[in-house]
Amino acid sequence: MMDTNQSASRFLQGIAFVLMMLVSYGNGYAQQASHPNIIIFLVDDMGWEDTSVPFSGTVTANNKKYHTPNMERLARGGLKFTNAYAAPVCTPTRVSIITGMNVAHHGVTNWTSPFKDTYSDAKDSLYDPANWNVNGFTPVAGIDKAVHATALPQLLKEAGYFTIHVGKAHWGPQGTPGASPYNVGFIVNISGHAAGHPQSYLSEDNYGNLPGKNAPQSVPDLEQYYQSGTFLTEALTQEAIRSLEYPVSRKQPFFLNFGHYAVHVPLMADKRYYQKYIDRGLDSAEAKYASLIEGMDKSLGDVLDFVEKKGIKNNTVILFLTDNGGLALTPPRGGTHLTHNAPLKAGKGSVYEGGIRVPFIIQYPPLIKAGGTTENPVIAEDIFPGILELAGVRNYKTIQEVDGRSFVPVLKNPSITDTARVLLWHYPNNWKNQAIPGTNYFSALRKGNWKLVYSQRNNTAELYDLSKDLEEEKDLSAAYPDKTRELINLLGKRLKDYKAPMPIDKKTNKPLPYPGDGVNK
Amino acid sequence: MMDTNQSASRFLQGIAFVLMMLVSYGNGYAQQASHPNIIIFLVDDMGWEDTSVPFSGTVTANNKKYHTPNMERLARGGLKFTNAYAAPVCTPTRVSIITGMNVAHHGVTNWTSPFKDTYSDAKDSLYDPANWNVNGFTPVAGIDKAVHATALPQLLKEAGYFTIHVGKAHWGPQGTPGASPYNVGFIVNISGHAAGHPQSYLSEDNYGNLPGKNAPQSVPDLEQYYQSGTFLTEALTQEAIRSLEYPVSRKQPFFLNFGHYAVHVPLMADKRYYQKYIDRGLDSAEAKYASLIEGMDKSLGDVLDFVEKKGIKNNTVILFLTDNGGLALTPPRGGTHLTHNAPLKAGKGSVYEGGIRVPFIIQYPPLIKAGGTTENPVIAEDIFPGILELAGVRNYKTIQEVDGRSFVPVLKNPSITDTARVLLWHYPNNWKNQAIPGTNYFSALRKGNWKLVYSQRNNTAELYDLSKDLEEEKDLSAAYPDKTRELINLLGKRLKDYKAPMPIDKKTNKPLPYPGDGVNK
Repeated sequence: MMDTNQSASRFLQGIAFVLMMLVSYGNGYAQQASHPNIIIFLVDDMGWEDTSVPFSGTVTANNKKYHTPNMERLARGGLKFTNAYAAPVCTPTRVSIITGMNVAHHGVTNWTSPFKDTYSDAKDSLYDPANWNVNGFTPVAGIDKAVHATALPQLLKEAGYFTIHVGKAHWGPQGTPGASPYNVGFIVNISGHAAGHPQSYLSEDNYGNLPGKNAPQSVPDLEQYYQSGTFLTEALTQEAIRSLEYPVSRKQPFFLNFGHYAVHVPLMADKRYYQKYIDRGLDSAEAKYASLIEGMDKSLGDVLDFVEKKGIKNNTVILFLTDNGGLALTPPRGGTHLTHNAPLKAGKGSVYEGGIRVPFIIQYPPLIKAGGTTENPVIAEDIFPGILELAGVRNYKTIQEVDGRSFVPVLKNPSITDTARVLLWHYPNNWKNQAIPGTNYFSALRKGNWKLVYSQRNNTAELYDLSKDLEEEKDLSAAYPDKTRELINLLGKRLKDYKAPMPIDKKTNKPLPYPGDGVNK
Repeated sequence: MMDTNQSASRFLQGIAFVLMMLVSYGNGYAQQASHPNIIIFLVDDMGWEDTSVPFSGTVTANNKKYHTPNMERLARGGLKFTNAYAAPVCTPTRVSIITGMNVAHHGVTNWTSPFKDTYSDAKDSLYDPANWNVNGFTPVAGIDKAVHATALPQLLKEAGYFTIHVGKAHWGPQGTPGASPYNVGFIVNISGHAAGHPQSYLSEDNYGNLPGKNAPQSVPDLEQYYQSGTFLTEALTQEAIRSLEYPVSRKQPFFLNFGHYAVHVPLMADKRYYQKYIDRGLDSAEAKYASLIEGMDKSLGDVLDFVEKKGIKNNTVILFLTDNGGLALTPPRGGTHLTHNAPLKAGKGSVYEGGIRVPFIIQYPPLIKAGGTTENPVIAEDIFPGILELAGVRNYKTIQEVDGRSFVPVLKNPSITDTARVLLWHYPNNWKNQAIPGTNYFSALRKGNWKLVYSQRNNTAELYDLSKDLEEEKDLSAAYPDKTRELINLLGKRLKDYKAPMPIDKKTNKPLPYPGDGVNK
């Protein structure tokens, strides 16, 4: 009996195999075309124009300062989004990407501490921290102060994707599930953990793991590169490409979430590029920053080369973005304080455009006409439904209600511009005890070209017309009181619907009221 | 055209799918039966009888002292090898497992330092370290002082296995490829790196990662368990089982290399079991050791439960062993110095039986009659060909010449006893500057029941008959000079053929001669 069964089974297997081969050879990547590979290339703390790819419509000083030939290459082959947004700091953006939720909704409004139950907010004489989700993202119920949601990588894994995380993760603190990318739906994790920056970019420092010198920011999983002269950006790139060999060799669709630690502080020279920027006259801090940018760009080039060499370019979505606006504080940056994101105002931490507008490019040849530009706004939470649609994952179930909107229609028709959509930012936190415009206890809203900047402390708002005033220099709130009131009310309603955390007034021990008329009644 | 192709492709895919399903349902795990799952459960520094499973033919004091119900369960369901061997220290065994090479052949004769190019040998007034492979295993050519070989996990991965490493790795130092299990052929690695022991078993210590307190032995990849009260053994177990969910859900055959850090020093109490041993009258150090043993056994039970719960017991090979004999030094052990492996002589570091004889059990229901015992000798390098044969991997190519022999014939017929086979141990190193019998600059050879113990320094040999003298108390070399000479010559020839490293005599600056007549001419 056994033998007969086995023969029959072998015969059927044989037929099945032949048919599978026919299918494979018959139409090339037909199978995978419905499940294209996905790469999210996520850079840390890089500003909107810290690239030689112009995003503002004109070539800015920053576009001339930085050299990113591989971003240029990606933009030539893909679609450039000139109105792309993230949160003012990193964890909120990262949680939005994996949950599809707006920051005000998921409640992880600030960067998460490496330590559980710990508010990363700077001390404030007037306000206690808002009741935000300091424990980040959780895939399981019952974790206090964490957003319980179904993660994008988990859905992709369940759909057959080989899911890989490399580099910065920063979804939750030590002692919580979110500290481990394995709990976010990744099959493989290299160097992702609870921390939001690297203790060191240098192999000479063992990336922060020299004996007796560790911190929560010591980068894990790279021991084979210690003392080898390999810069962190390069080590992560080699690991990412090595990790891709496995799914590519099996023709299994993959999702690579490649989160560079670059260009976050500590600003350290990537020696491969540093001298070039010194020779161009940059000060030491800015030359370090520019070398981090170009090292990151070289990494992007290596990924693009890999994809082309493997013949999977037409079958691979590559999404480039950064997690918030560029850092504009001196020190650690060189140059002039708060000017680094010109023409945008302010920088990381702020709800002004300098803190939230980010470079964003998607390459996917079957759907996207190469070299295009779209002005349609897009925000971090859109990546969740957008990627799932591109991945051919339909009718998925999520614990959370998804706020993002798929960008796929825009890929097909970049001239679409949705002027009715409301984009929201919410930062009920004290980032640093410094006066940085639009930072600490601010919210913001964009609808069409109207941008509202709202101070939670003062219950006041500014209004800008971004079509004429990208720099947010001309406050129109007095000129347009009705529009201002309308947008304040809209903001208040959204925040209330989301049960968004608000700063706690020490005098009353109560949260500050939501903005607008009547929403707190 | 596109549509027609797609329709045709969908039709063929449909047929193929139906046929695959027929195959799957038709004969259960027929496909996987030719590629069974493989679990190597490798314990560190646990002695031959540190278990309630008797390996010596009688119930020893150690068998009564330790409580390992899950090892009992495994032995009841599998085959117990009572003459199983490893090297006297850990890295040599681990490299033998992944390369199939004898230690004298692969040349990684001692434990590898976490640091590249660094001899872990204790300082010696008379000898410089042998020219051994201090950089461990390498999968790529051109690494100095490392053995370049094709690794077992790599071959299994290429054969379609989903390869997972969890726990202690210790195949090569920082700054070399062997530091990363990803370079050894694993698709997933949790907590494996260059170090050979854990800095701490305690989540309260972040497993050695408290800020400013790290060492090369700080255990990576477990941040989600920090400060959670989860003992290292338990955290690794949860990670191993979580990692298995993915291949099991896809019915992809898996190879799990589960290397426990337990029961290596530092001896720390696994609180779940510690008090029980105190109550039984053990001293604190021995109660800690016993708690580490039982925590390890609980982990084995969790793995067995998982395999049974998933319905894959009949399709899964489980191989239990330890990497060398039990540590027999006081301190850190309690009790009486060098008695811990009774009835065996000495312990870890020694070529006497107490240093090299290890518990070894294989469960694989389709091939093995449950509850059996075999006396046929087996040694670490046999795992390489044995596992590949069980995995149905044939005609594989390796860089290295494999010394091990498959144990598969013994699984089928446990009464086989190969008395002609020569087993070899080689330790041209100074482990510790202590007088421990059979330790520091010793080799050994077993053929049938004859055991030769050879001192490299003194060029002298002892001869034992293990069938009558398991304790190695009665040196028969004077009584059997011809047998002694024969085995010395055999040892010398093997070492010469392998180009085995020998200690360097400081007086002559030359390696000590190989043993025997004429081999150095």
